[in-house]
Order: sequence, then C-alpha cells, then structure tokens
Amino acid sequence: MSICYINGAYRNTLNSVISIEDRGFNFADSVYEVIGFKRYKLLNIKKHIKRLKNSIKELQINKPFTNYRSLELIAKQLMRMNNLNEGFIYLQVTRGTAKRNHLFSKKMHPNIVITIFSGMNLKSLKEGVKVSLVDDLRWLRCDIKSTSLLPNVIEKQRGADRGFFEVWQVRQNIITEGTTSNAFIVNEKNKIITHPKNNLILGGVTRDCVIQIAKNNDYDVLEKGFDIEELKKSKEAFLTSTTLGIIPVIQVDDIVINEKKIGEVSQKLEVKFNDFLDDQVK
Amino acid sequence: MSICYINGAYRNTLNSVISIEDRGFNFADSVYEVIGFKRYKLLNIKKHIKRLKNSIKELQINKPFTNYRSLELIAKQLMRMNNLNEGFIYLQVTRGTAKRNHLFSKKMHPNIVITIFSGMNLKSLKEGVKVSLVDDLRWLRCDIKSTSLLPNVIEKQRGADRGFFEVWQVRQNIITEGTTSNAFIVNEKNKIITHPKNNLILGGVTRDCVIQIAKNNDYDVLEKGFDIEELKKSKEAFLTSTTLGIIPVIQVDDIVINEKKIGEVSQKLEVKFNDFLDDQVK
Repeated sequence: MSICYINGAYRNTLNSVISIEDRGFNFADSVYEVIGFKRYKLLNIKKHIKRLKNSIKELQINKPFTNYRSLELIAKQLMRMNNLNEGFIYLQVTRGTAKRNHLFSKKMHPNIVITIFSGMNLKSLKEGVKVSLVDDLRWLRCDIKSTSLLPNVIEKQRGADRGFFEVWQVRQNIITEGTTSNAFIVNEKNKIITHPKNNLILGGVTRDCVIQIAKNNDYDVLEKGFDIEELKKSKEAFLTSTTLGIIPVIQVDDIVINEKKIGEVSQKLEVKFNDFLDDQVK
Repeated sequence: MSICYINGAYRNTLNSVISIEDRGFNFADSVYEVIGFKRYKLLNIKKHIKRLKNSIKELQINKPFTNYRSLELIAKQLMRMNNLNEGFIYLQVTRGTAKRNHLFSKKMHPNIVITIFSGMNLKSLKEGVKVSLVDDLRWLRCDIKSTSLLPNVIEKQRGADRGFFEVWQVRQNIITEGTTSNAFIVNEKNKIITHPKNNLILGGVTRDCVIQIAKNNDYDVLEKGFDIEELKKSKEAFLTSTTLGIIPVIQVDDIVINEKKIGEVSQKLEVKFNDFLDDQVK
C-alpha cells in the first residue's frame, strides 16, 4: 500500500481523491515538481522550491505553504510511512476548488497532493537510447511547470509506439527539448550545447546541475539552440531529467551518434553528477 | 444541492471526487463538451457528439459510451434530479486512472464526469461587450476540445483584470478566436468573416450554426483569417459560444465598432439563432 499526502492528511494513494471541481482537473490550472531523494534526503531541494515558487507566481496561484520547510517535513514523513529511503516525490499544487469558470478568484486555497514512488531500473537506458524528432506543438510558456502536459503525452506515446525512448521537439528547425527531459549535444570541438532557458523550454533542475558540473570540469557550455545539421555533426548526445539523471542518446531517427557508443563527455558527466548527488546526502 | 454523474453513479456535486491518479488531473489528458438544453432537450446534440467523438479519436482515448444515446439519457436524468428544464451540461471524459506516467496503456477505461448548471443572465452582455487583443500562446492542436486550458484561463483572467469581457487571440497578425468563444466581423460589404476551422481554433458548435443560419439568410460568409486592419474597418463584430449564443462586440481595445451600437447583421442573426434553437424543442 502506498501512502500519499492531500491537503494536510496522509492517505492510501489508491483511494485518494480530489474534487471534480478542482481547477487542476477542469483546466490544467496547476503546477508540479518531481524531486529525487536518497538516504531520506531530498536532492536539489532549493532549486526545486525556487522553480515551484516561480511557476506559482507566474500563474498567480496562492502560496501552498506558509513555509516551504513544511514540504520537506511532509516528504520525510512519506518516506518513513512508505518505507522508502530512495526514490521520488511528486508534488502537484492546483489553484484550488471552485464552480467551473475560466475566471478565478484571487482568494482561492490551493490543493496540495504529494505522492511518492521508487525509481525504475536505469541500467539498460544508461547504455544509450534512441530518440526521434517531432514538431514542437506546445504552447509558448513551457517555462511554467504546469500540468498542461497533453502535447508531451501525445508525442511521447507516439514516439514509443514507433520504438523510441523519447522524442525531441523541434520548433523552427531548432531542437527545444524532450517531452520529459532536456536535450544536449557535444560538438566536434567538445563544446556542450543545450537550448537556452526561455519560454520555449522547462529549465530542468538536472539540466542546471549538469551545466554547472560541466563548467566546473572545464568544459565549455553553450546555452544556445542547435539544429539538425549540428546534431548530425555532433560527437555525443544525451538527455537529462530528475528521474533519469544523464542518459546517452546513441541515435536520433536515422542519425547514428558516436557509432552508438557512449561518449567520453557523457560518461564523465555521469560520474561527476552521481558524485554531486552523493555529496548532498553524505 | 446539485447532483452530478460520475462513472455510473449520481452524486452530490459538492462531495464528488476523482482519483488523484486520474490522467485528466495529472496531465490534462481529457476532453470536454458544454451542451445547452431547453425544455429538457439537449440542443445541437448531434454536432456536440460528433465533436466529442473527434476529440476522443485524436487522443486515442477509449470510447466512454458504447452508445452515445446513454449520454442523452444521463443528461435527462440530471435535468430531472436537479429540477432544471433549461441550462447546460458539462461533460468531461478523461483517459482514465493509472500510476502517473506520460506513457499510457491503450486499454484504459475512461472516467466520465457530467455536471449541470443553469445559464447566467445575458441581458447586459447582449447590449455589447469590450474585448482586448492578446498574443495567442496556445498549442497547435486547438481543434481538440481538451482540458489543456491553462493559456485560455491566464489570458481570460488578465483581460478581465483590465476590464474586458473576453480577449481575442492573435497569431501572426491574424485573429484566431476568443478564449471561450469564436470571433466574427462583418466587413464593409456586409460579408461575415471568421477564422477557418483548422488546428488553430476550436470549431464551436454555435459558430457552425451561425454560419449555416447566415448562409440560409443570404449572407456571404468567408471562413478566412482576418487581421487588425480588417477589424478596424469592420461594420460589426460579435462573438459566439454555446453558453452565450451571439454577443455583440462594440469595442476591441481602442477600436470602437459601429459607434458602440449593435449592428443590423448581429441583431438579425441573434433572432434567427434563437428561432433555430427554439425549433429544436418545439
């Protein structure tokens, strides 16, 4: 049995419910975070809270916590109750419950849902995955981590149906990001390239960490859009997300990357990134 | 007390709930319809069911009803239980409930939620409303009537905060539609113009009816994009939706339309449209 948290109470996840007039349910009027933990400790928590606060501010959702320290305490309680010392917390904050109307009162009380889950086995993925390129159909505020995820769902599933682990979305010939991950390449000059943080991508926490780690290890990182030609010429490619860490990309549609071998840069970053997470729970 | 319908049961709306693992809640992975009724009879029901079927097909959601006649029977039951002979039905169909994952099983059972509400008093709106123009931030599958409505919510609320009843969204200098309504103008030659049905708008049922009624009354209707210059020169403007019918637009930002008077074409269409609805319940 899995235990979750809803608006102050701990409950059996299977029987846990939300009002049919919750605005997250009716309008996708809600935001979320997925936060990793190890040894009962939340990872990169400051970055996640910063992003959550930003999503909430952009949507004018009222504060879900008077003190964000509460989130850490609830998470720890869930880890204990679910007997999990390593895994992920899913947090969803909706604007609240009200009679259905696009217009909202500025005085609404947010609904808070927090669930917990263990990570999947990443072993085979760490040997490299195939991705496909698809048109980026999404709206123009991808920087808000909202539950308005239908385009991501559609494209990720279509990709999976065609045998791809992930799809990278392309807007005006530039690769923005995956449906559940950020996209990186390493060019011929060993420079690491990823789309800049703006309204067209969700700036991933793992993305930020990887950039910082790369810089600390004397790699040049260019936060700029890259196109298919640059992808074709790249030495390595990889994707990042909180639940996956760093995953090598060995093929993009018909484009074979680095003879399907895991590149040196990807390998090194993977090691350094794991050290970086481990350092947080020492 | 208001009674609603959820997956086979009639319940008190206030206490009605859905799983926190419903995909409508987690991913906006759901579709909806708002259907008017008069004298206990659903209006334009064939058009609504056709659109619902299309949304479901596009998202590969499994059939919510083996026979759509069930929807009419449930709606009638709700009218009786809520003692409402005129008003609106809100129907939301989600892909179903599953452990959170962007990828979905093709065998999921949809969740069905149906609520009922009475219409608002439209008297003051029928005297004309002000709308504002905003950038169209939405995704590129607006033709699917999904609950991925966050952009509409944000823009409608921002407009309301600035004193506008509705906002018309503009993509590449072309007015697509409102956040909860379709946009029409009448040009100097008395031609009625509205954006064509494609992936950039949700083809409203009332929009379709109004176009048909206009044609039957010897108006020329052009389903083509119009820009701000055409809007400035227009003789009349109006918006349409299921809950509002036809509402004259007398001002768009600083652009005054027809000296803020309700135009002849809008007036005539309003009368004919009401006759058209009344004919369905005779």
